[in-house]
Amino acid sequence: MELGLVRCSANYVPLSPISFLERAASVHRDKTSILYGTKRFSWSETYQRCLKVASALAQLGTTPGDIVAALAPNIPALYELHFAVPMAGAVISALNTRFDVDTLALVLQQLEPKFIFVDYQYLDIVLKTLAQISLRPGKKVVQVVSIPDYDKPTSSIGSNHKNVMDYDDVLAMGKADFEIVRPINECDPISVNYTSGSTGNPKGVVYSHRAAYLNSLAAIFRFDMRQMPVFLWTLDMFRCNGWCLTWAMAALGAANICLRSVTAELIFDSVLFHRITHLCSAPAILNIIAESPVSSQRPLPNKVTLNVASALPHSEIMKKVEELGFNVVQGYGMTEALGPAVVWQAKPESDSTFPDEEMINWREGLHNVLIEGIDVKVPNTIESVPHDGKTIGEVMFRSNTLMSGYFKNPKATQEAFRDGWYHTKDLGVTHPNGCIQLKDRAQDVILSGEETISSLEVEAVLLSHPKVSEAAVVGKHDAVLKEVPCAFVKLKDGCSASAEEIIQFCGNQLPSHMIPKSVTFGDLPLNFSGKARKFVLREKINAMDTPANS
Amino acid sequence: MELGLVRCSANYVPLSPISFLERAASVHRDKTSILYGTKRFSWSETYQRCLKVASALAQLGTTPGDIVAALAPNIPALYELHFAVPMAGAVISALNTRFDVDTLALVLQQLEPKFIFVDYQYLDIVLKTLAQISLRPGKKVVQVVSIPDYDKPTSSIGSNHKNVMDYDDVLAMGKADFEIVRPINECDPISVNYTSGSTGNPKGVVYSHRAAYLNSLAAIFRFDMRQMPVFLWTLDMFRCNGWCLTWAMAALGAANICLRSVTAELIFDSVLFHRITHLCSAPAILNIIAESPVSSQRPLPNKVTLNVASALPHSEIMKKVEELGFNVVQGYGMTEALGPAVVWQAKPESDSTFPDEEMINWREGLHNVLIEGIDVKVPNTIESVPHDGKTIGEVMFRSNTLMSGYFKNPKATQEAFRDGWYHTKDLGVTHPNGCIQLKDRAQDVILSGEETISSLEVEAVLLSHPKVSEAAVVGKHDAVLKEVPCAFVKLKDGCSASAEEIIQFCGNQLPSHMIPKSVTFGDLPLNFSGKARKFVLREKINAMDTPANS
Repeated sequence: MELGLVRCSANYVPLSPISFLERAASVHRDKTSILYGTKRFSWSETYQRCLKVASALAQLGTTPGDIVAALAPNIPALYELHFAVPMAGAVISALNTRFDVDTLALVLQQLEPKFIFVDYQYLDIVLKTLAQISLRPGKKVVQVVSIPDYDKPTSSIGSNHKNVMDYDDVLAMGKADFEIVRPINECDPISVNYTSGSTGNPKGVVYSHRAAYLNSLAAIFRFDMRQMPVFLWTLDMFRCNGWCLTWAMAALGAANICLRSVTAELIFDSVLFHRITHLCSAPAILNIIAESPVSSQRPLPNKVTLNVASALPHSEIMKKVEELGFNVVQGYGMTEALGPAVVWQAKPESDSTFPDEEMINWREGLHNVLIEGIDVKVPNTIESVPHDGKTIGEVMFRSNTLMSGYFKNPKATQEAFRDGWYHTKDLGVTHPNGCIQLKDRAQDVILSGEETISSLEVEAVLLSHPKVSEAAVVGKHDAVLKEVPCAFVKLKDGCSASAEEIIQFCGNQLPSHMIPKSVTFGDLPLNFSGKARKFVLREKINAMDTPANS
Repeated sequence: MELGLVRCSANYVPLSPISFLERAASVHRDKTSILYGTKRFSWSETYQRCLKVASALAQLGTTPGDIVAALAPNIPALYELHFAVPMAGAVISALNTRFDVDTLALVLQQLEPKFIFVDYQYLDIVLKTLAQISLRPGKKVVQVVSIPDYDKPTSSIGSNHKNVMDYDDVLAMGKADFEIVRPINECDPISVNYTSGSTGNPKGVVYSHRAAYLNSLAAIFRFDMRQMPVFLWTLDMFRCNGWCLTWAMAALGAANICLRSVTAELIFDSVLFHRITHLCSAPAILNIIAESPVSSQRPLPNKVTLNVASALPHSEIMKKVEELGFNVVQGYGMTEALGPAVVWQAKPESDSTFPDEEMINWREGLHNVLIEGIDVKVPNTIESVPHDGKTIGEVMFRSNTLMSGYFKNPKATQEAFRDGWYHTKDLGVTHPNGCIQLKDRAQDVILSGEETISSLEVEAVLLSHPKVSEAAVVGKHDAVLKEVPCAFVKLKDGCSASAEEIIQFCGNQLPSHMIPKSVTFGDLPLNFSGKARKFVLREKINAMDTPANS
C-alpha cells in the first residue's frame, strides 16, 4: 500500500469475548472468578477448565460453526460453557429452563445441536424430549453431557444412562494446552438465544462475536460498573447470555456468585456475606425482594445496584426495594438487542458541577454510548415522529450491539431490519427534550375511539393496588369504539376484591377511556419469561359474552 | 444466507469516534462541552459547529482521504477539528507546536495537507515554513486558515494576509445540515500523529477510525472514568489526539476545560472553580505542580485524578504531587499505541471483598481490557522471556488499539509489526506474578561488562537528588567494559554541585557498575516532547576526551 498502512495480526484481532477470559487469566489469576456454595474457582482455574472443555469438544468432533446447547440453572458449568463452546469454534445456545417438552423439542429440532449439556435436574426432560424428536436423514444423535452438582454425589447420574457423558469426564479428557479456535471473521456467530414467545413460538436470535464483545463493554457503561464488581447471578444466564454479563464479568475480573435457585433469604445472605455490588433481573426478582419476610430483610452493608429490565418507570414495588437500600436502575431491551439496550437512572451519581444546567442524567441511558441511533418513527417509514411527547410511533435502533438475525429465518430477519433500522415493534413517543418514552408493544396497544391506550399504563395502575399481584389489560372488540380495555387480574394470596373495587381504584387515577370495562380474576397464562400471553387473553375476552364490569 | 444472518446498516456501523459526538449532541444537548476563559459551548453547539466546518471543508474541495493539518494550542477550535475533519471524510494531523521551522517543513512536505488550520500565534511561522517548501508538480498550494482568539479582536489577523482564510469565515460558510461523510471501512485512517523524534526525524503515525474508537473506550476504562467528568486540558491535544481523550470526552459527555497555556496557578484555579475531576500530562506538568509556589497551591475541593505518562514508577515529584491531594495514575505508551496503553495504579479504589486474596490492582492496568496481548519476548523472536523478573527482553503488544502503520513508510511499518507483534523497542522483564516491568529503551540501555544497565534507573536516582532538575545517562565506549554510564545533569535554578557530590549520592543507592563515571553539567538537548536526545549526548560524551569523574 502506498501509504504504508497494514492490517495484520498485531493491530487487528477479530473482536471476541474470548479475549476477556484470556486477559482475566493473565491479570486476575488467583482472584475469585466463581463462587457457588462452598466451591470457589479462580480466574486461572476457570480459564484452564474452559480450555479443557473446548479441547474435549474438539476431540469429540466439534467443528467450527457447530451448535452446542445447554440447559441448566446459573451453575458454574453454564458460565464456563459461555467461553468453552466459542473457544472450540462452536456456537452456544443456552436454553430456557422453563421451556415445556413441546417447546424444547421444537427448539432442538431447529437447532440440531451436536451436544447438549444438561444439569442433572433437567436430564430426564431432555432425554424424554430427544426421544420424541425425529432427526433429518444423515443427522447424528445429539450427544448428551450431564452436569452433576458439587457436594451432591447422587447428582452424577449421567453415567447411569446409556450414551450420556458426564461433565467431569469431558473435563478429564480435555487438554489445557488446547489452541483456541478463534473466529475468522468477528461477525461469525457466537450464540443463539431463544425469545420467550410472547407472540407465538420462540425465535432463535443469533449473536456475533463482534456484537457480544461490544455489548459486553456497553453493559459495563450502561450499569456504570467499575473494576472487579461482586456480581450475584439472579438473572438467568440463558437470557441473552445473561445480558452479555457472562462475558462482561470476565472483562472486569468480577467475582461471579452463582445460585441454583433464587430466594430473598439467599439474596440478603449473599449481599451480606459476599458484599455483592450488582445484581440484575427480570421484575420477578423485585417482587421476591419486596415481598420477602422482614426476617430475611437486613440492612445492606454497601451500595448494591439492582438492574431490572422493565418497560415502565418506577412502580410501588421499585420504591419498596429502594427503601430497603437497593439502587434500582431500569433497563429496556429485548433478545434482539442482546439485553437491555437503554437504561433510566433515577438520580445522578453526584451533583452537577454546572448547577445551572438541566439535570439530564436520566436521559443519559436512553442512548447508550455504543448505540448508533435510537428513534421513534412513523410506522412503516424512517421519518421521526414530532418531538411533542404525544405522537406515537415505533421505537427503532441502529447499533453494532444488535443480533445478526433470526436463526434459519431470513424472512423474519429481513422484516426486522427493513430500511436499515431494527424495528422493535414497541410503541413510544419522543419528548421535546429528545427523551423517548415507551408506551406499549405494537400488538398490545388498545385503539379506543380516537384514543390510543397503552395497556402497560393501565397495568401499572392495577399493579399499584395493594391487593393485586399480576395484571394484564387487553382490548375487547366494541361496535362503537372499536376496542375497550378489559383487565385480567391475579390477586395476592389471601386477598379478595370485587371488580367494582378495582375499577373504582383505576377511575381515581386514569381518564375515563383508560378505565377497564371488565375485570376477570384468576391465574394469568404466562410465557417463558413470566409475562402474560396477551394473545391468549384477547381470544378469551372476545369469546366471553360478558357484559361490561363482569 | 441459509441461516438468515445479515450484516446491514441496522446492525453494522463502521466504528468511528464521530458517533460519540452525534450521541453527545442528542443526549447531552445543553450541557457544557467546552469552556475556554469566559467562552462556553454546549454539546449541541459543538456538534453544529463541527458540521459547519466539515461542510465548509467539503465546499472548499476536500475529498475523502485528504489530509487537514492543524497547529494550535489546546483551544476550542482544535477540539472541534478532531471531529469536523473526519466528518468531512478527511484525515486530521494535529502538529506539535514545538516543532522548529525545519521539522515543520519536513512534516508538511510529507503530509501534503489540503488545509492547515493555524492558531494566530503560529501564523507567522507557518507562512514562513510554507514559503520554503517546494511542492511536487501538480500539487496545489496548502490553504491556510487562521484561528483568532476569543475576546482578542487583534488576533483576527488572518484576513490581513493574502490567501489566508479566517476560521470564523469558514464556520460562516458551512451548513449545519451537512451530511456527514462516514468511513466506508472502519479501518480507514482518521488521523496522522507525529512522533517526537527521539531517535531521528519525527515519523507520521496513522490511526484508523476503528482503533481511535476502541482506544477511546479503552482510555475510559484505563483511567476508570465515569459519566460526565470535568476534564482539564493540560495534555497537548496534538499528542496522540490527546491520547484519544478528545474523542473519549464526547463519549462521556465531559466538560472540556481548555487552556491556551498551562501554569500552576491556572491548574489550581481550574480545579477550584470548575471542580476538575481529571487531567493528564507528560511528566513536565508534575514538575509545574510540585514546584509551584505555596501561594498557588490550595486544598483540592474533590478527588482529582492526574494521569501521567512515564516509564518509571513513583518518583519524589509524584509523591509531592500526591501530598497536594492529587491521585496520580501512571501510564506507559507511545504514539504507535495511541497514547498510554497500560497504567499502574497505586492502590485499589476500595478494599477487596475477598481479603485473603492477593491485592493485584496494580497489575490490572498493565494489560488493559482492550489490549489483546502484552509480553516481554526474547529479542528477534516471539518467545517469551522466563518469568523471573531478571531476564531482559523486548516489550511487545498485540491490540486493535494500535496504529495502522507509519505514514508513507511501509518499511518501518513492516519492521514494527514483524512476526505479528508490535515491537516497542522498549526493554523489560516479566516477574513471576506475570507483571511486566519496564527497564529502558532498547537503544538507551548500557551494556557494561556482563551487566545490562537501565539508564532510566540511574536517572531516577539522579532526579531524586534535591539539586537536580533534569538528568540523562548514556554509555561511553570503554576498552575493558564495552560501555560505562556517564551522566548529563541540569541543576535547579540557583543550585550548584560538584560531580563528586552527585557521584557519591548515586554510590549510596546504586551498585558500583551503575554509578556514573562522569557528570557533565548544563542544559540538555531536548526533543519535541521535552525528553533528552540521548543520541546527541552519546556522540558528545564519546567525542569528549575526558577522564572519568570530569
